[in-house]
Amino acid sequence: MEEDFSPTPDYDKHGWFLKSVVEILFKSVVFATNRDKVVLWKHPEELLKVFDFSLRQTGVAQDKLLTLIKNTIKYSVKTGHPYFVNQLFSGLDPYGLVGQWITDALNASLYTYEVAPVFTLMESGVIREMCGMIGPDWKDGMFCPGGSNGNGIALNLARFRLNKNVKRTGMSQSPRLVLFTSEEAHYSIQKFASFIGIGEDNVILVQTDKVGRMKPASLEECIRNQIDFGATPFAVVATLGTTVRGAFDPLYQISTVCNKYGLWLHVDAAWGGGLIFSQKHRAKLNGIETANSIIINPHKLLAAPQQCSILFVKDENILHECHSKGAEYLFQKDKYYDQWYDPGDKYLQCGRKCDVFKFWLMWKAKGSSGFAKHVDSIMDVAEYFERQVLIRPEFQLVSKRQYINVCFWYLPRYLQKKKDVMDYSMQLHKVAAQIKAVMVKHGSIMLGYQPLKEFPNFFRFVSQNSSLSTRDVDFILDHIAEIGNAIYN
Amino acid sequence: MEEDFSPTPDYDKHGWFLKSVVEILFKSVVFATNRDKVVLWKHPEELLKVFDFSLRQTGVAQDKLLTLIKNTIKYSVKTGHPYFVNQLFSGLDPYGLVGQWITDALNASLYTYEVAPVFTLMESGVIREMCGMIGPDWKDGMFCPGGSNGNGIALNLARFRLNKNVKRTGMSQSPRLVLFTSEEAHYSIQKFASFIGIGEDNVILVQTDKVGRMKPASLEECIRNQIDFGATPFAVVATLGTTVRGAFDPLYQISTVCNKYGLWLHVDAAWGGGLIFSQKHRAKLNGIETANSIIINPHKLLAAPQQCSILFVKDENILHECHSKGAEYLFQKDKYYDQWYDPGDKYLQCGRKCDVFKFWLMWKAKGSSGFAKHVDSIMDVAEYFERQVLIRPEFQLVSKRQYINVCFWYLPRYLQKKKDVMDYSMQLHKVAAQIKAVMVKHGSIMLGYQPLKEFPNFFRFVSQNSSLSTRDVDFILDHIAEIGNAIYN
Repeated sequence: MEEDFSPTPDYDKHGWFLKSVVEILFKSVVFATNRDKVVLWKHPEELLKVFDFSLRQTGVAQDKLLTLIKNTIKYSVKTGHPYFVNQLFSGLDPYGLVGQWITDALNASLYTYEVAPVFTLMESGVIREMCGMIGPDWKDGMFCPGGSNGNGIALNLARFRLNKNVKRTGMSQSPRLVLFTSEEAHYSIQKFASFIGIGEDNVILVQTDKVGRMKPASLEECIRNQIDFGATPFAVVATLGTTVRGAFDPLYQISTVCNKYGLWLHVDAAWGGGLIFSQKHRAKLNGIETANSIIINPHKLLAAPQQCSILFVKDENILHECHSKGAEYLFQKDKYYDQWYDPGDKYLQCGRKCDVFKFWLMWKAKGSSGFAKHVDSIMDVAEYFERQVLIRPEFQLVSKRQYINVCFWYLPRYLQKKKDVMDYSMQLHKVAAQIKAVMVKHGSIMLGYQPLKEFPNFFRFVSQNSSLSTRDVDFILDHIAEIGNAIYN
Repeated sequence: MEEDFSPTPDYDKHGWFLKSVVEILFKSVVFATNRDKVVLWKHPEELLKVFDFSLRQTGVAQDKLLTLIKNTIKYSVKTGHPYFVNQLFSGLDPYGLVGQWITDALNASLYTYEVAPVFTLMESGVIREMCGMIGPDWKDGMFCPGGSNGNGIALNLARFRLNKNVKRTGMSQSPRLVLFTSEEAHYSIQKFASFIGIGEDNVILVQTDKVGRMKPASLEECIRNQIDFGATPFAVVATLGTTVRGAFDPLYQISTVCNKYGLWLHVDAAWGGGLIFSQKHRAKLNGIETANSIIINPHKLLAAPQQCSILFVKDENILHECHSKGAEYLFQKDKYYDQWYDPGDKYLQCGRKCDVFKFWLMWKAKGSSGFAKHVDSIMDVAEYFERQVLIRPEFQLVSKRQYINVCFWYLPRYLQKKKDVMDYSMQLHKVAAQIKAVMVKHGSIMLGYQPLKEFPNFFRFVSQNSSLSTRDVDFILDHIAEIGNAIYN
């Protein structure tokens, strides 16, 4: 056999191998049944022993590779499993998956029309379509490598609008810029405020109300305080669908404050933005059109495969003005087609994977109405989940559900209705972690938990998987109760 | 048929469709023959007419989707085709592709061991292995969404080392920070200097020599000048393999200057870094170990599918110190395993696609020696290309080849040996664009061109495809000459 190192597939050399991999994927991942485990848990030290991670001078044969691939699947978390409700992504959309496989095979980079004709037009089409759904004034957008990055890019746009010279001269002569977001907003606001040179201390965290929404009166107070301290407010980041509680900040009131003080309003709708497809729930996004920029992650609620994250802007020139550099080796001025079709210069990334195609294909396959049904069905299940938590005595809601997130405690019998137990909070704090450890070791369910503000550790149910039924909800709650019962009673 | 909107593949509903897509991909992309066109060129306006980009309320049936998929392939550039030598990526590695398909099917997000056990360990293993190849002092790294982002992150690390308070307080009280890179460095340095609040004017472009390497004496002069102007130098970005000419900056000399002035040395080896696998050419990277940070893109020279980009750092704590935020909903302190295994907090991204697996699988399949053969074979072909340009009278080299990039002009007969033609430069400037337009319309070859410094438009041959032979080189040059002959003679 000829040496096998060149990046060109050859049917005689690779046909059998590629087909075998696809077969394995079909059997053990894509069409695996729900009765499989979510995870075959191994402790890291143990996994290091049973899995051959080693890299050597010589390559291994294809049949050995197939074994490694089978093991990779065996020890990986099945994030497409209905009982993976651990994060703000889940499911395994068949059309999205196919879209990715095609994207991979074509391996395009989305900077110029020249090398990605179909995908560049598709990208601008999808952005235009969604802009139209947000509001008539919305003009442009860009795909981002995740919502965190998108939030960072929005902050940079806000700063640019305040002072366009910053692009050239930097911030060393700048006044102290401050921005405002709620204390339950995503941590990427601080990470990226730090990254872009604003500083995380200059992210002022505004108080939230009892269900997790930013308090507009507190926002205005914070702004006034900062002005009194000599700082220069420039932006507010509101959240539609906070990470933990799924709260929706009151946009109209926040937007009024932003207008009053001339601040850029960025809406982090990474989690909540998918509601835009639902006639029934779209109203939760009311006021989104008053923003200056919005991030929406179709890889969250809409279950597009990772990653798919879009930043929308109202101002049709700002992405280009703020990001362009005009590299001549890529964006030649004497092309055989109108340069206007090359999206690359409005991006920060240069080479860039094609995230639009999987989303476009899902949209094409299901129509807007398919996304709507998906969303409505998830919301129904979340509502059922909340109701069950309310009626089952061993569970307690952390706060009223705003969206999909149902935040709840499992209460061991000795803590039920006994708030006077010494160290009640400290006792309760340990429960979720202990139950979770048992569930993961069973491999039955993966369900996230965390503390928040004054609340001890609680579980957070979040599902983007519209194939989850009310029966699954019962199973999840029964299972937790069963484990809790075994541990504590 | 039940409504088809849920993100769970069902064999009865989706089995035939998924299999058909894989069959189409095998036939028309993965195992397509070299005799196919690189691109079936359509002008954007024309493509908008012949391709159905529309998104509607109702979804379309699977057979209609298959037609759309066939059309997507039909009108897309075949970046895996040997005659796609347009960018710094090409080829379609069979193992890399399979790796991506597996990654897509498992749809993991790489923040915690919990949700990506195999991949988090694989990632730290690959980073550790490559750190060892760079030098004994190298300790940590992170995967980035592309080399541009990686360069930006490195600049932020450099700033952080200078003043750790910047993370919290931002740059408003900062002196004017300046950094230095060559005038032929990648434009991402300026884009990200702007993004992180340094400002693009504070990127000082150092002169290059006649083959495109940074002049160390000019670097030191620039630094002194900036100090005289009251600025605070903080970093130098050297390039190993510049985008257009493939030049390698003289690292030892630059590093001496950096040490003298206490500057962070970042090496942008996105393009050249893959040489680290070649015993024969590794010496081109000599001095790389003197840097503080390095970016290497396996998706370039090593032909891993997009995207695969790794930033390496010497300081083992800096990624965590500079980026961490400790979000409790993700990085709980009371986990059932050591938190140390969760890489997420040292990243800026939150949810993140698994870029390590395709690269690991390629490495496993071919061994380090397979990568070495791949690299050596490409270098041989580049050398042959250069020799042909030198001996063929209708071609002229722009400057001596440093790496893979062969930069050359096609000279119409009336310009050959006639530098005294009026507007020689202006005449020559038009040639590449005209020939390129014809080639693309033929769909025969895609080959990049651009101007640079005082040079009028020239072609740049770059191939990461080790299946390209000297016969292909002859074909490419013959073809250009043929078109040139038809247009000009």
